[in-house]
Amino acid sequence: MIDPSESRIVRSHHADVVSAARRIRSHVHRTPVVTSERLNDMAGAELFFKCENLQKTGAFKIRGAMNAVLSLGETDRRMGVATHSSGNHGAALASAARVVDAPAWIVVPETATRFKRANIERYEGCIVACGPTLADREAKLEEVLAETGATFVPPYDHDDVIAGQGTLGLELVEQVDDLDYIWLPVGGGGMAAGVVAAVGETSVEVCGVEPVLAGDAAQSLARGVRQGPMPPTTIADGLLTGLGRRNFERLMAYGLRITLVDDTEIVSAMRMLWACLKLVVEPSGAVAFAAVLQARPRGRVGIVLSGGNVELDLASADD
Amino acid sequence: MIDPSESRIVRSHHADVVSAARRIRSHVHRTPVVTSERLNDMAGAELFFKCENLQKTGAFKIRGAMNAVLSLGETDRRMGVATHSSGNHGAALASAARVVDAPAWIVVPETATRFKRANIERYEGCIVACGPTLADREAKLEEVLAETGATFVPPYDHDDVIAGQGTLGLELVEQVDDLDYIWLPVGGGGMAAGVVAAVGETSVEVCGVEPVLAGDAAQSLARGVRQGPMPPTTIADGLLTGLGRRNFERLMAYGLRITLVDDTEIVSAMRMLWACLKLVVEPSGAVAFAAVLQARPRGRVGIVLSGGNVELDLASADD
Repeated sequence: MIDPSESRIVRSHHADVVSAARRIRSHVHRTPVVTSERLNDMAGAELFFKCENLQKTGAFKIRGAMNAVLSLGETDRRMGVATHSSGNHGAALASAARVVDAPAWIVVPETATRFKRANIERYEGCIVACGPTLADREAKLEEVLAETGATFVPPYDHDDVIAGQGTLGLELVEQVDDLDYIWLPVGGGGMAAGVVAAVGETSVEVCGVEPVLAGDAAQSLARGVRQGPMPPTTIADGLLTGLGRRNFERLMAYGLRITLVDDTEIVSAMRMLWACLKLVVEPSGAVAFAAVLQARPRGRVGIVLSGGNVELDLASADD
Repeated sequence: MIDPSESRIVRSHHADVVSAARRIRSHVHRTPVVTSERLNDMAGAELFFKCENLQKTGAFKIRGAMNAVLSLGETDRRMGVATHSSGNHGAALASAARVVDAPAWIVVPETATRFKRANIERYEGCIVACGPTLADREAKLEEVLAETGATFVPPYDHDDVIAGQGTLGLELVEQVDDLDYIWLPVGGGGMAAGVVAAVGETSVEVCGVEPVLAGDAAQSLARGVRQGPMPPTTIADGLLTGLGRRNFERLMAYGLRITLVDDTEIVSAMRMLWACLKLVVEPSGAVAFAAVLQARPRGRVGIVLSGGNVELDLASADD
């Protein structure tokens, strides 16, 4: 039996996602859902792939960043936004800020690849270099915030960001009738918490997936105590981070089940997606499919392909 | 001024495409149209990419094959279908035949790669080996037809195949309002003739594209005399074939303009599609985008990404 106060919270989070969807609609893609009989046969289920690799900036992160930026008042927008992320959130925040003509400062370690820097510069984000450790990044970000008066938009531990990421779940249940599951990757947990809010009190079960080598969320939820991130060793470099505090609480309340996949399974799943779906998916974007091949759920299974920002050998020669 | 008899023919071809669309609807994907602000900026136009690389069997060819197979009577279906093609049409015909439980014989040169053979075997097509020349293929096909009583479904010079390929144009004009152009690759000319029929008497202009190294259609249309195919040297191996007789006549009547692109432009365009659109597109599938970058049309430009069946290094290790 659902606790009435818990049910009220679920409805409120769901309403946040619905508002976010309305807010960001004209600024993000309603990404397609693709299917493949060949992969259905392989998995023994009906698979529906939500193509966030085809999203603006190449990843779902633009949804949360856009919602956070559009939720700022006029004055705050003029002052700009800032974050520390060399990955998809950094590019997404720069892109979202550009839509409202706000400046964006992105704190990026000097060690980040040219590919990652270019992804941020493309959207006219102002890159601020820092040292390689988390402490270096946080110190530099504090400096930027103090100097500029910009608003910090964190990559996942933020209600507007969570609601924004949840909009992909709202779309998926609109695009596919009678889904039984939505399988998705878990890094900081923003997408998972948002999609849990999006499906609300429907019968769709949300299932989380992590690389074995970055399985902190599975441990956190099993122990009921939030664990720190693991050393950065998995190929799924978008999922290295630990669970955000808000996301931990929401996913504990939901009882999220997490499946672990190893790097061999991730690479093999990514290959199948490239070859069968003709979609460029990054390793972090392929973990949910890898888990479905391992766990073999039955029925109608939504799978989130979260991003496609992989450095292509093919593209590196003259870009 | 349009000749009234010409106009009647245009309407009749258009009606064939509309019938084909109804016939094949439940058996093929209505493929998505994707956009990219980054590529729009690069091209100086609004680009709408029709993703036939996401089509069943990985290429548009299933549309024509499906229409041809579904147009057969019960008895002919039972006798099966046959063709000679080691490429996308061979796989498409095998797949289409399987839908109606018809046998399919695909004549394939012994020199075809394992990748191409696997694409046909996947759909349970029966591969019949032959020698490497066109004469070898045709002789073997005649043998198969005589022995089995199967119906020959050619890859492009066939009214049902043309009408089937045209359905992608019908979808594109439904999916995107006020298109100015549709740019598409020309090999045997089935897609071009079909899409010309699909746009009918609307104001959308269809523009053909060929690799310089397989520019026979451009020469044929310029001279008014159908030329044979050129030696197989371009990387765009889906476009090696000469124009079909029907397609030559239809495209002459239409006055199709053809833009030529060289292999460097094709590879560069393909790289951009992989990196920016996150789509796996084969070289033949990238020629229309290459031509748009060269010719720089203005306005709202549809671009057909015709297929994604490229042998991935990434996928070759253990497949």
